[in-house]
Amino acid sequence: MRARDLLTPSPTVDLDTPVLDAARLIADRDLPGLVVVDESGAPITILPGPEVLRLAVPPYCQDDPALARVVDEAHADTFLMGVSGRRVRDALPDPPRELPVTDPDATVLELAALMARTRSPLVAVTQDGQLLGAVTLQALLDQVLPA
Amino acid sequence: MRARDLLTPSPTVDLDTPVLDAARLIADRDLPGLVVVDESGAPITILPGPEVLRLAVPPYCQDDPALARVVDEAHADTFLMGVSGRRVRDALPDPPRELPVTDPDATVLELAALMARTRSPLVAVTQDGQLLGAVTLQALLDQVLPA
Repeated sequence: MRARDLLTPSPTVDLDTPVLDAARLIADRDLPGLVVVDESGAPITILPGPEVLRLAVPPYCQDDPALARVVDEAHADTFLMGVSGRRVRDALPDPPRELPVTDPDATVLELAALMARTRSPLVAVTQDGQLLGAVTLQALLDQVLPA
Repeated sequence: MRARDLLTPSPTVDLDTPVLDAARLIADRDLPGLVVVDESGAPITILPGPEVLRLAVPPYCQDDPALARVVDEAHADTFLMGVSGRRVRDALPDPPRELPVTDPDATVLELAALMARTRSPLVAVTQDGQLLGAVTLQALLDQVLPA
């Protein structure tokens, strides 16, 4: 079993993709995160799912989430509108997450080592610098768990 | 919109649950992680999905995932058997992840603040110390994204 046998098509975003579009991809495709690519299509980092919220949540609420409750429900329901106009480059964690990336020949042990090391549920698979797709933790576990 | 409106039933594990059982729950239910509860059913921490791999992957492979490729494919395919007999308590990250937990009245902004702060795609919802379920990033985004 190699990475090529476990590939899931992976929608990509670039640094200028609106954060709301990234959030919609994560929600619609039920993904743990997105691969961020540069202008040439080469993956540069991972945007983990929870990061799309960070720009929209006021810092005082992140420091003490209980303070978020003073915001009334109607305004709370629309908090995500706060990221309108913001781009993926603004949402990336600092420092950027180590990019888990490998090639189509990687074994399941190598994929697992990458996920364990980077604590990422998603590994990008590239060939000649171009993204072929991703392997998710779910796909990996489905293969390696005893029947 | 409150946490109670976004609840997903959340399978739980305890510190003595075999890691393989936890891995199977994550794979079968397509979850980003599991809530770990104590003997009384009170949530104590989150077991993030990628952590179930850490025990099974030899440390030298985590330090340098490329080294994993020297293990032949047949042995790589069965690496997860290395956690047979190991328990959730052995798989928890050190230090344990901050437990994102709230009550059923939390607004979506409070849920988002918890996910952003703890970088967890899962928040536990409790009442009187007992787990009612969890809110996932997917469920939250489905509600707060503009139609």
